[in-house]
Amino acid sequence: MSRGRITGLTVSDVRFPTSLARHGSDAMHPDPDYSAAYVVIETDAPDGLKGCGLTFTLGKGTEVVDKDLDEIISNFRGFYRQLTSDGQLRWIGPEKGAVHLATAAILNAVWDLWAKQEGKPLWKLLVDMDPKQLLSCIDFRYITDALTEEEAYTILQNGLVGKKEREEQMLKHGYPAYTTSCAWLGYTDQQLKQLCTEALKDGWTRFKVKVGANLQDDIRRCKLVREMIGPENILMLDANQRWEVEEAIEWVAKLAEFKPLWIEEPTSPDDILGHATISKALAPLGIGVATGEQCHNRVIFKQLLQAQALSFVQVDSCRLGSVNENLSVFLMAKKFQIPVCPHAGGVGLCELVQHLIIFDYISISGSLKNRMCEYMDHLHEHFKNPVVIVNASYIPPQAAGYSTEMKDDSVRKYQFPQGEVWQKLLSERNIQLK
Amino acid sequence: MSRGRITGLTVSDVRFPTSLARHGSDAMHPDPDYSAAYVVIETDAPDGLKGCGLTFTLGKGTEVVDKDLDEIISNFRGFYRQLTSDGQLRWIGPEKGAVHLATAAILNAVWDLWAKQEGKPLWKLLVDMDPKQLLSCIDFRYITDALTEEEAYTILQNGLVGKKEREEQMLKHGYPAYTTSCAWLGYTDQQLKQLCTEALKDGWTRFKVKVGANLQDDIRRCKLVREMIGPENILMLDANQRWEVEEAIEWVAKLAEFKPLWIEEPTSPDDILGHATISKALAPLGIGVATGEQCHNRVIFKQLLQAQALSFVQVDSCRLGSVNENLSVFLMAKKFQIPVCPHAGGVGLCELVQHLIIFDYISISGSLKNRMCEYMDHLHEHFKNPVVIVNASYIPPQAAGYSTEMKDDSVRKYQFPQGEVWQKLLSERNIQLK
Repeated sequence: MSRGRITGLTVSDVRFPTSLARHGSDAMHPDPDYSAAYVVIETDAPDGLKGCGLTFTLGKGTEVVDKDLDEIISNFRGFYRQLTSDGQLRWIGPEKGAVHLATAAILNAVWDLWAKQEGKPLWKLLVDMDPKQLLSCIDFRYITDALTEEEAYTILQNGLVGKKEREEQMLKHGYPAYTTSCAWLGYTDQQLKQLCTEALKDGWTRFKVKVGANLQDDIRRCKLVREMIGPENILMLDANQRWEVEEAIEWVAKLAEFKPLWIEEPTSPDDILGHATISKALAPLGIGVATGEQCHNRVIFKQLLQAQALSFVQVDSCRLGSVNENLSVFLMAKKFQIPVCPHAGGVGLCELVQHLIIFDYISISGSLKNRMCEYMDHLHEHFKNPVVIVNASYIPPQAAGYSTEMKDDSVRKYQFPQGEVWQKLLSERNIQLK
Repeated sequence: MSRGRITGLTVSDVRFPTSLARHGSDAMHPDPDYSAAYVVIETDAPDGLKGCGLTFTLGKGTEVVDKDLDEIISNFRGFYRQLTSDGQLRWIGPEKGAVHLATAAILNAVWDLWAKQEGKPLWKLLVDMDPKQLLSCIDFRYITDALTEEEAYTILQNGLVGKKEREEQMLKHGYPAYTTSCAWLGYTDQQLKQLCTEALKDGWTRFKVKVGANLQDDIRRCKLVREMIGPENILMLDANQRWEVEEAIEWVAKLAEFKPLWIEEPTSPDDILGHATISKALAPLGIGVATGEQCHNRVIFKQLLQAQALSFVQVDSCRLGSVNENLSVFLMAKKFQIPVCPHAGGVGLCELVQHLIIFDYISISGSLKNRMCEYMDHLHEHFKNPVVIVNASYIPPQAAGYSTEMKDDSVRKYQFPQGEVWQKLLSERNIQLK
């Protein structure tokens, strides 16, 4: 069944100097350069079949060559375990930080390869898989006290009802999105107004504002945005882990008059009990707690759900261990009846996560209530199949694969440090790298 | 006050092929090669003053040169925050995994440098610091809901009472240790018997056994060890994260007849709520839960304490962000009245952590009840000032510094991959590295 054997794996360090215009600036990251570890899995198939994976920020090769795809996907759970439990590497994780991001990059390339081989976009590959096959991709280690394999099976079986209609609905209308592009922390009020005006014209109805550096600034900016978007549209806040637990409660209470739907990342992403305390305190104000982009694995999400610490689950397609681990979180969220509103942005995160959330709607959640997927309007031009947004919704991708493949020209130009963009910037900054 | 300005920082990848004899084998790491990222901070002081730091496993350089030591230690909290909150690096953490281990390596070298400059062993430097100065080294971010700076100050003030007597007691008798060297999972029953016999002869009274791979093996091995050591000596179990939550409870219940003091790492180190469930279930059997060697920062320890998930806190000198973050965990443990029994072993962990636990006794905990520090008898010969164990106790080091400095010859031979030990092993394994 598989076309060609895997013959090699290459990793490129691709970086975009987004900090130059303060894109992406928030209360904890004043000047990020969005970067991707870009993994290409090559095969010896005559048609040059290749799988492309990426993780936002960092990557590392691992021994996955000289297998064929069937060997991997016929025991995908085992392969996942092999990568995450490597006896010589797990000390620097386990299942967190740099090694886990590297796992995601590699597995994303495997999923891209698989979908390309089947000639389907990844979301459709997932939608067409039967429940048993989906479960065989998931490592249930450390989550069986919250979700057993049997419960997951029942959820997927129930998801078969109405699936065809939901798929048609997605193809017609797409998956609802919200925009983060109007209100980065480093933008001036003038920029903010202009970007809100344009976004409203383009049909956006859901807006996120970065907060957390200065309360008076936050009040002014939230007031401004709420006035711009009116009372009916949705406003969300994002503090990027800036606060202590008590501080978060006090600060957000002072922004309650602007009726935010959620406060995102109020404190450390590791602080399950802290998020539970904040959730409880803010519930009477009608403000939910959201987090997830820096929650490093399914064990953290499991506990956030068990502790009733969240109203919104924000999975990240590249921080979790690829599709495999995301599947486990979608299934737990369904069991605990908490909507998943994925994190996106960065480099390629929109391209990837749209597949997951469209699958979630069609095969797991079956609901759009309180659900939407983040959108950011940067860096899409570097991808062969960039996202398509129509009427503030993600339109399901049609090209085979996981939308992970970058343009050759972009990889060449932005590769660090040898790409021409970086050579120029580094010489301007008088930095000499080997 | 400072002697010389910091002129450079070098990192060596030093690895020891411990897997060859199955030293260190447990239920999750069948064949570890213990390794150290070895950081040397050089100064231009005429006497060649240098600080040596290491983290067990992995390291990475960072921009710390061209400062002098006084600049760092006069705002140590700020320097800690600068390393852990770097806007371009924190995405692959934050404060966890590879970047946090790198932070530890660098800060360990700074502490070594500081102690050498003062001409004191690190534990004595800490003991002689006044409460305010100690607090100025700690970043309280994300823990103020459990421990405020004011509470920490009170704890340190109270610790002044009887300090002198405790210091004398330590110098005379040392800090009680337990041994992990008798019962690695990969050892045969024959080895186990022989090692227990020798350890008993050497005066050891506290023994840890690796478990978790096979219940029948565990029953046989625990029975054997309990018979060897008798009913009065202390037995501890370590599962190295092998189990699900429910599985842990059932498995350990079947080993209860051997009267273990604790079960260590029953499940994922990220699972705070899981550890709380296990603690509650095992309390009636008189078995405590211990964890910490893979708990990645103070936020995890905070929650383990808040959730009553632990009976023993096992800090790791290199996984936490050096002395700075360890201080915050010692202080929280004191507040929550849970004993700290540090993790050690690996490469250099015994050399480092002895300083911390001796300081903890003298200046914070003031008690030896239910307290002891892990000991493993491997790889000490590579250090200039190896640990001294007398009567199963750590004798306080006398040499100035943090005991982190390796012998030049060891660094040269074991550096990966160019050291002669690795060149030989790699050529035997027919592996060609660049």
